[in-house]
Amino acid sequence: MAHRVLHFFADFFVYETAKSVVVKSWSVGIINRVVQLLIILYFIGWVFMHEKGHQLRDTGIESAVMTKVKGLGKFNNRVNDVADYVVPSQGGSSFSIITSMVITANQTQGRCPETDPKFKCTTDDDCMAQLGSNLGNGIITGTCLNNTSGTTGWCEIQGWCPAEDDNVTENPMKEVENFTIFIKNSIRFPMFNVTRGNFPSSLNQSYIQKCRYNPVDHPFCPVFKVGDILRNINQSLDSITDKGGEIGININWKCNLDYNVTYCNPNYFFTRLDAAFKNSVAAKGYNFRFAKYYQSEDGTECRTLHKAKAIRFEIIVSGNAGKFNTVPFLINLVTALTSVGLATVFCDIILLNFHKGADEYKAKKFEEVSGVVSESANNRLYEGSQMSIKALEKSSNDSGTFSIGRQESHSPPNQ
Amino acid sequence: MAHRVLHFFADFFVYETAKSVVVKSWSVGIINRVVQLLIILYFIGWVFMHEKGHQLRDTGIESAVMTKVKGLGKFNNRVNDVADYVVPSQGGSSFSIITSMVITANQTQGRCPETDPKFKCTTDDDCMAQLGSNLGNGIITGTCLNNTSGTTGWCEIQGWCPAEDDNVTENPMKEVENFTIFIKNSIRFPMFNVTRGNFPSSLNQSYIQKCRYNPVDHPFCPVFKVGDILRNINQSLDSITDKGGEIGININWKCNLDYNVTYCNPNYFFTRLDAAFKNSVAAKGYNFRFAKYYQSEDGTECRTLHKAKAIRFEIIVSGNAGKFNTVPFLINLVTALTSVGLATVFCDIILLNFHKGADEYKAKKFEEVSGVVSESANNRLYEGSQMSIKALEKSSNDSGTFSIGRQESHSPPNQ
Amino acid sequence: MAHRVLHFFADFFVYETAKSVVVKSWSVGIINRVVQLLIILYFIGWVFMHEKGHQLRDTGIESAVMTKVKGLGKFNNRVNDVADYVVPSQGGSSFSIITSMVITANQTQGRCPETDPKFKCTTDDDCMAQLGSNLGNGIITGTCLNNTSGTTGWCEIQGWCPAEDDNVTENPMKEVENFTIFIKNSIRFPMFNVTRGNFPSSLNQSYIQKCRYNPVDHPFCPVFKVGDILRNINQSLDSITDKGGEIGININWKCNLDYNVTYCNPNYFFTRLDAAFKNSVAAKGYNFRFAKYYQSEDGTECRTLHKAKAIRFEIIVSGNAGKFNTVPFLINLVTALTSVGLATVFCDIILLNFHKGADEYKAKKFEEVSGVVSESANNRLYEGSQMSIKALEKSSNDSGTFSIGRQESHSPPNQ
Repeated sequence: MAHRVLHFFADFFVYETAKSVVVKSWSVGIINRVVQLLIILYFIGWVFMHEKGHQLRDTGIESAVMTKVKGLGKFNNRVNDVADYVVPSQGGSSFSIITSMVITANQTQGRCPETDPKFKCTTDDDCMAQLGSNLGNGIITGTCLNNTSGTTGWCEIQGWCPAEDDNVTENPMKEVENFTIFIKNSIRFPMFNVTRGNFPSSLNQSYIQKCRYNPVDHPFCPVFKVGDILRNINQSLDSITDKGGEIGININWKCNLDYNVTYCNPNYFFTRLDAAFKNSVAAKGYNFRFAKYYQSEDGTECRTLHKAKAIRFEIIVSGNAGKFNTVPFLINLVTALTSVGLATVFCDIILLNFHKGADEYKAKKFEEVSGVVSESANNRLYEGSQMSIKALEKSSNDSGTFSIGRQESHSPPNQ
Repeated sequence: MAHRVLHFFADFFVYETAKSVVVKSWSVGIINRVVQLLIILYFIGWVFMHEKGHQLRDTGIESAVMTKVKGLGKFNNRVNDVADYVVPSQGGSSFSIITSMVITANQTQGRCPETDPKFKCTTDDDCMAQLGSNLGNGIITGTCLNNTSGTTGWCEIQGWCPAEDDNVTENPMKEVENFTIFIKNSIRFPMFNVTRGNFPSSLNQSYIQKCRYNPVDHPFCPVFKVGDILRNINQSLDSITDKGGEIGININWKCNLDYNVTYCNPNYFFTRLDAAFKNSVAAKGYNFRFAKYYQSEDGTECRTLHKAKAIRFEIIVSGNAGKFNTVPFLINLVTALTSVGLATVFCDIILLNFHKGADEYKAKKFEEVSGVVSESANNRLYEGSQMSIKALEKSSNDSGTFSIGRQESHSPPNQ
Repeated sequence: MAHRVLHFFADFFVYETAKSVVVKSWSVGIINRVVQLLIILYFIGWVFMHEKGHQLRDTGIESAVMTKVKGLGKFNNRVNDVADYVVPSQGGSSFSIITSMVITANQTQGRCPETDPKFKCTTDDDCMAQLGSNLGNGIITGTCLNNTSGTTGWCEIQGWCPAEDDNVTENPMKEVENFTIFIKNSIRFPMFNVTRGNFPSSLNQSYIQKCRYNPVDHPFCPVFKVGDILRNINQSLDSITDKGGEIGININWKCNLDYNVTYCNPNYFFTRLDAAFKNSVAAKGYNFRFAKYYQSEDGTECRTLHKAKAIRFEIIVSGNAGKFNTVPFLINLVTALTSVGLATVFCDIILLNFHKGADEYKAKKFEEVSGVVSESANNRLYEGSQMSIKALEKSSNDSGTFSIGRQESHSPPNQ
């Protein structure tokens, strides 16, 4: 028993290493090293330095955004401040600045004619055909309200009256160009528990009140002028106030946490979010309807309907932090080392096919065992070294080694 | 010195390749190739074709959603339009359509009896026990307001009076089934800088006004009928208007950017978001309270409290774009090639244990070096090839090669 | 032709395996096994057990959050309920609880003096210098409205009058500490199609009404007391109601889907989101302005402006689910197996440099082929085994095998 255990251990601790063939050839040696060098350079330069293959990446950034708009604008002979034109008012990551409105005041429930050209009519039948339509300002009753001359009129609706007439155009609030948006963004990379704010604590109150973001001069200023943003994305104020639009303020946190966390700062860039639809003939721009409700003196509810064209701002925070981690590092390192071994495959192809003395290399590299078991144990080994070790005559396209083409008129080496 | 440098270079450019044993055996050869084929098929079929192992994936999709609801409904003998029932009104990715409301009009600050059965009382002590409760409509004062018969009454509250009585039931706005939701979604894959909209620019205004999304006939129509959505998720209108509910409209962008970007189109699917709570006895449905504030004639503020049951829609955009990238491709390729090498491990086990002539293969594959250093340099090499090269008699369960079981009564080959 | 095909198949099914050198040395054998064991332990313990290297990870969690605040508070001698202090009212993932307000009632469009100290003036010139400022409550007209004594006054503005005077301080609504937030969160891991709710269906109505979240006693209770949250993040109520603030309620779903899905439950933790700015002298706290609009008896619009200091709550849902998947498993497994092979590199260095009899091992491991092709085929093989197989005298720092330092006074073995 003890003998067996000892035997097992003796076998277990036997060390086994691959037998190598060493070829003293300048040409193959240099090719081998050059290929290895190229592979190493690829891995160092691209995989590790550019793609940061040694880092664990966290893209699940957690973000909180607070915004504050400042500015005063005139619309319809009224001075509007933040409480008037910013919707919703809470200063979140998505808000709209209303630049113009179609206001329909003093609406009450009742019956009245439509205003939309789609609902022009001459007889009640024209209106009956529109029953159930969702496109009007109210429920179509099926009656055609003719004008006094009795020729053309409008279908009657039931709902809030008078109906909105959105062909009224007012000059938009041009002052929006000078409005400023203050953005406070705090983020966290949960994987690495790193918390950052979008501007350093050292910025003082007066700088923040006066500065305007500029990628070159004021990259850390958290105050953005609407006009600057529009200029950055090559949009004129008119093009966006005409029908409304959506602007994305992207805050991109690309952090290499192998360096000091103070280098982890955001980059801002701006996009016209509805750019994907710029060639679309339909559904351009951005507008929405809302109502302010009043109680009239006799207690009935009335409302003022607003159809607002607005610039919607979306603060889109994205992030990508990397930090050294053993798992991706080892995967890429072992991949690199294994890939370096691929140089051998390449060199073997050259050595065994195109090199002077290829046959001899084959004889050295490949040791053949035929399927026949030889007679005596004594004899076997001799044959093993003298007979069975013969040049491999045929192409072996096995993994690791390719020898291309057929060898003809090849005298067996052990003749 | 020059000699040394030359020597170093000569050594450096020596080419080293593994020495192989070639076994001409049909059985092992076929097994080897079949195992290699299976491994290659697995990698091509599963890792590369199905799991797209050669692609870099971007799941950090950036998205902007604009929605617009259309439809007219009757509730409480009043015609409601978008400005009445959509909250919030700005048309973002999350909005509610109010289907029914409990309206408590003309509330003013004051003292009045509770309405909730929890706050029934017979004496003040019953109400004193409820002091500090958050569940009432106002702050419990501790007084029991008995009714005229003097038996049971309600605790007095301080706050907005009269208190809301939410046992009033009104028929919900049934027309919601015909309401349509227009969704404009533009996305961007920041890693690949690909921007897409959820419908092609070629769609014209009249198509968009008339079409209704249908996965088969109108997969690109961006207009969704509420009734269609409910049918898709097997919910009746009553089941969701009864207590309110949440519906998710998932827009899924799964893009293979190795193909043309025009193939990068969204898939829509719908979920009842509160499905996880469908078996929960508590906290079903979705409702919220809001108030409209008025100023009465004498200048005191009054409000109309609304408890709204609503269907909340959440547009959830998810995305996953893949594009060929050398890093994941090489990792998987090298893994594949290395795995192909595992066929050798499998075949070695067969060859060294179960094959006819296993001992001879062992003698060929393993060349033994004993720990004893031989006497003369001349002699050494001879011994190296004639003496030390003997059959490995014992099982070697080293990495790469397993030979199972013990070989007994084995005559040493070089006797 | 048939012969050729047969030949091709015979070659194709040739089996090739690496020739190994077996070293029966306890020291190297034990070192080899220990290094292999360490590598295996690293992979099992760290890569697979800790880093879950065998799992596919889904971090693209889809989430829907519904919140409901309960509580009654007194501010400015008025009892406020949910409809008064929660903005926006719909119960989404982001909402503010207003704790104090500066109310400017009965504003109408007109001209009036500023209230901000920045706009103090003695002459019109002082005000002309401020033309175009965005910091005031209205558009600066350039006129200085002196007080009766004629010394100092305020610049005139055009806009909503009277201007807001935000130096008025009211006691904040202290009762906020007892307010409760009910959170209903349903999530979905799209990769694995797993849907979960943040509390089990078995919780009954009365438990949910009474329980308060506590990480130890009530980890599944979905009702959070504001005071508990503040205590958890070491903030006093005063510190946050003083200037307003942002609190993050993180719901973290870390699920190992290799186990039963019922173990997939959320963890809650709380953060002060504006913590990144706590040392910042500027832009502290959180406040926003909104207005309620009224129609006065003569039909002119007037409004009540509110500057609200609030606690903003953001429900941040993050998730990370892992499930066994063959692709990452195989990558890591093959990396592990390949890494085990690195033990050989380490042992070769010891064996070929520091071990007794290193030269003999070199002679065995490396078989040299000189670049010169020998004369006769018969002769060649002999030379192959007797002449060309000589000890590699020089350091070979090739891949896989390093032999350090120079060997001097080394007699050629085949002399």
